[in-house]
Amino acid sequence: MNTRNLTLMTDLYELTMMQGYFEQQENEVVIFDVFFRSNPCSSGYSICAGLEQVIEYIKNLNFSYEDVDYLRGLHMFSEDFLQYLSGYHFTGSIYAIPEGSVIFPKEPLLKVIAPIMEAQLVETAILNILNHQCLIATKASRVVFAAGEGGVMEFGLRRAQGPDAGLFGARAAMIAGCVGTSNVLAGQMFDVPVMGTHAHSWIMSFPDEYTAFKAYAELYPAACTLLVDTYDTLKSGVPNAIRVFQEMKEKGADPKRFGIRLDSGDLAYLSKKARKMLDEAGFPEASICASNDLDEYLIHDLKMQGAAINSWGVGTHLITSKDCPAFGGVYKLAAIQNENGEFVPKIKLSENTEKITNPGNKTIFRIYEKDSGKIKADLICFEDEVIDSSEDLLLFDPLETWKKTKLKGGTYTVREMMEPVFVKGECVYQSPSVMEIASYCKQEKETLWDETKRLFNPHQVYVDLSEQLYQVKKELLDQMSVTD
Amino acid sequence: MNTRNLTLMTDLYELTMMQGYFEQQENEVVIFDVFFRSNPCSSGYSICAGLEQVIEYIKNLNFSYEDVDYLRGLHMFSEDFLQYLSGYHFTGSIYAIPEGSVIFPKEPLLKVIAPIMEAQLVETAILNILNHQCLIATKASRVVFAAGEGGVMEFGLRRAQGPDAGLFGARAAMIAGCVGTSNVLAGQMFDVPVMGTHAHSWIMSFPDEYTAFKAYAELYPAACTLLVDTYDTLKSGVPNAIRVFQEMKEKGADPKRFGIRLDSGDLAYLSKKARKMLDEAGFPEASICASNDLDEYLIHDLKMQGAAINSWGVGTHLITSKDCPAFGGVYKLAAIQNENGEFVPKIKLSENTEKITNPGNKTIFRIYEKDSGKIKADLICFEDEVIDSSEDLLLFDPLETWKKTKLKGGTYTVREMMEPVFVKGECVYQSPSVMEIASYCKQEKETLWDETKRLFNPHQVYVDLSEQLYQVKKELLDQMSVTD
Repeated sequence: MNTRNLTLMTDLYELTMMQGYFEQQENEVVIFDVFFRSNPCSSGYSICAGLEQVIEYIKNLNFSYEDVDYLRGLHMFSEDFLQYLSGYHFTGSIYAIPEGSVIFPKEPLLKVIAPIMEAQLVETAILNILNHQCLIATKASRVVFAAGEGGVMEFGLRRAQGPDAGLFGARAAMIAGCVGTSNVLAGQMFDVPVMGTHAHSWIMSFPDEYTAFKAYAELYPAACTLLVDTYDTLKSGVPNAIRVFQEMKEKGADPKRFGIRLDSGDLAYLSKKARKMLDEAGFPEASICASNDLDEYLIHDLKMQGAAINSWGVGTHLITSKDCPAFGGVYKLAAIQNENGEFVPKIKLSENTEKITNPGNKTIFRIYEKDSGKIKADLICFEDEVIDSSEDLLLFDPLETWKKTKLKGGTYTVREMMEPVFVKGECVYQSPSVMEIASYCKQEKETLWDETKRLFNPHQVYVDLSEQLYQVKKELLDQMSVTD
Repeated sequence: MNTRNLTLMTDLYELTMMQGYFEQQENEVVIFDVFFRSNPCSSGYSICAGLEQVIEYIKNLNFSYEDVDYLRGLHMFSEDFLQYLSGYHFTGSIYAIPEGSVIFPKEPLLKVIAPIMEAQLVETAILNILNHQCLIATKASRVVFAAGEGGVMEFGLRRAQGPDAGLFGARAAMIAGCVGTSNVLAGQMFDVPVMGTHAHSWIMSFPDEYTAFKAYAELYPAACTLLVDTYDTLKSGVPNAIRVFQEMKEKGADPKRFGIRLDSGDLAYLSKKARKMLDEAGFPEASICASNDLDEYLIHDLKMQGAAINSWGVGTHLITSKDCPAFGGVYKLAAIQNENGEFVPKIKLSENTEKITNPGNKTIFRIYEKDSGKIKADLICFEDEVIDSSEDLLLFDPLETWKKTKLKGGTYTVREMMEPVFVKGECVYQSPSVMEIASYCKQEKETLWDETKRLFNPHQVYVDLSEQLYQVKKELLDQMSVTD
């Protein structure tokens, strides 16, 4: 599956435009930025994910004989153009923010520098991949935040929007801090922990609940989590589980490995009652896992109510990002190279000021408070700008420019966020493993202030423009309105 | 991609339960039903989709050497069990409602009859595939309904939840009545029409809008839809489009092929203004296509406001079913075969009456009013029941049993909805092409009353139980509460 060829996974208009450029013999090098306009799920930040799959996609780009034949059959494309496609490969450069990074609206998280025919083709697939994984990583990060010390298990495969959504959704969820996934294929492909208990059907296939529990416990004494809600949680499920735990303990099993799972009913009430019953029976270490339509808000609320839940199985809401199932990443032209090899900044106007793009060949500098290591702001700059952190730095809001902050030299540090991924067609980036990315992501979240991480009405991180970028943008806008 | 092996695309617990049954030497034939509890998006019906991919999945089930090796590395599974998996293939039977059918909550849309080890494994993938495609087909059907005479184009690939969500989402959208998709890979794989115009970047890559339009029109005179909102829709976009149309007309191009696309701003206002400008310039046949975060409600509303829009490009909301991104299909044990080969009905209790399952080996009879051909009700029956449509038929609500309807013999017709798909491991079903399914789906929607099709507060179709099934369910429930 790693070598799946997704070359035709593109919008038809990318191909018709490509042919247009081909016919015009117009193939200047251009820059496209991928960015998004607002965080999903009212979050204060997003998590970057999907770069490894973008790299695989770019590496595997290649129109097969069948692909070209199919396109010929559409009767839209000339033989010359089809000939060009047969020999197509990506010769451009790509820069991107590493996976697992915290990212913010309006800043490019990936940029493509390539002849326009090549840059246009890859738009759809790059957006598809990044939009999906950034979305699920961001949602999962919120759920993990709500769960605090309790581990979150990704259990959503059956409700995911198709096989890839389950697979790459699990990948994104692991990056964002889940402790495991139920998805065995994800476990195999990404070398991440797989987890699970048993279903109601296990219980129902035995003559009674006790026999079913006993059979399961004897088979899996080292991971003995029993689902207690098939018939009646407190009258039947928990007492039967305790009976089995007692028998297992007598046989020498480790009570730290015992647990129950609640999958219906009032989880706050049932978990507290079950905790009491387990404690009184001498199983204070037995864990209580909860599942059933959980999301970050419900987990937060259950914890507020003192629910005695140690771990959380989260399905539908996480794997579909149910309250906000799309990440609005876009792919916009930022510059065109002229005959002299210079990038001429381009801008897209809009009635909506928020939708006006940032022109030019850009990068992002992240500014941290030196003492705390927390993020002060992100600064979108031209890629050849330099920030000397020993000097004072003036930050200002790019819309309400009177809102200013001056950072004293020596009190802040700077990190350039974009890294080279492809240089002139060659991949120069080695993706870390998913668990390495997860570990990096955890550090990244440490750079956020608590005010940004909170679930409700979080503080939005400042994303400002450098003075130089601001001036160029303003000039372009002024020119545009004069010609209006 | 058709032969992708998704065998490990399962929840870990399916495998741990399988090993449990293996160790218990418990492998009776069981019946699992796939059903859902409510229509997504407040719809009055759902559309069945995904069966072809379920069939491919079942046919390709096979644990490769690498799969078994990966599972061995988890240190959870015995060598005997891994040996069994190496030789695994599906030997069971599957019955299903054909794709494109209208379906309703609580009735099985697919049933698996197989040894429990086999039936358990396939739960997750079957649900993943059906949940996704039924969801998108249902959402797309609503959007198509709202658009009425105007064609709906599926434009969502870049916002879909990963490659498969784009691909199979496009498939489901075509089944439900979209006229085309932008997704070229979907076009290739499913032989469905692909469509598209051009992007803002096309315009921006030219010195000015007029030159960009002219270049596009000369290249694609037979499908000349120009995107008019890059700079200013009414001041620049539409006048430039008209200028190009005039030049093209002089050169002999067919004005029926001209059109504009609006992708921002107030679509009602702009479309009416643009219509007037096009009409006055002598292009009354030029079409107006609209896109920009459309869904069924916005389309309905735009039409109410008299928007002059002929076709609709729908992306994010359709491809993610944004207001309801999960279809709640579940997979529940309904019966276990005893030593005598009889299926003993099984039931799952729940505090929530709605969640109690329907026991036994069942099928669905759809009852139509003979004169109109419209659906009167669906009747869930045991699979060996027979309905003689020359006799009177008493229907009653399975919860509020005093709500009764008697259908006079001769006034109704009956159709059994489930068809054999696999019989004892052999596939006996040939999937129709996607466009054939789409054509069948259109007929299927003709069997719904207008009251069921409407977007707001639709009439819910009756799904009743046969007298025999009702009695068996009642007895099982009574037995359960006695032992409580």
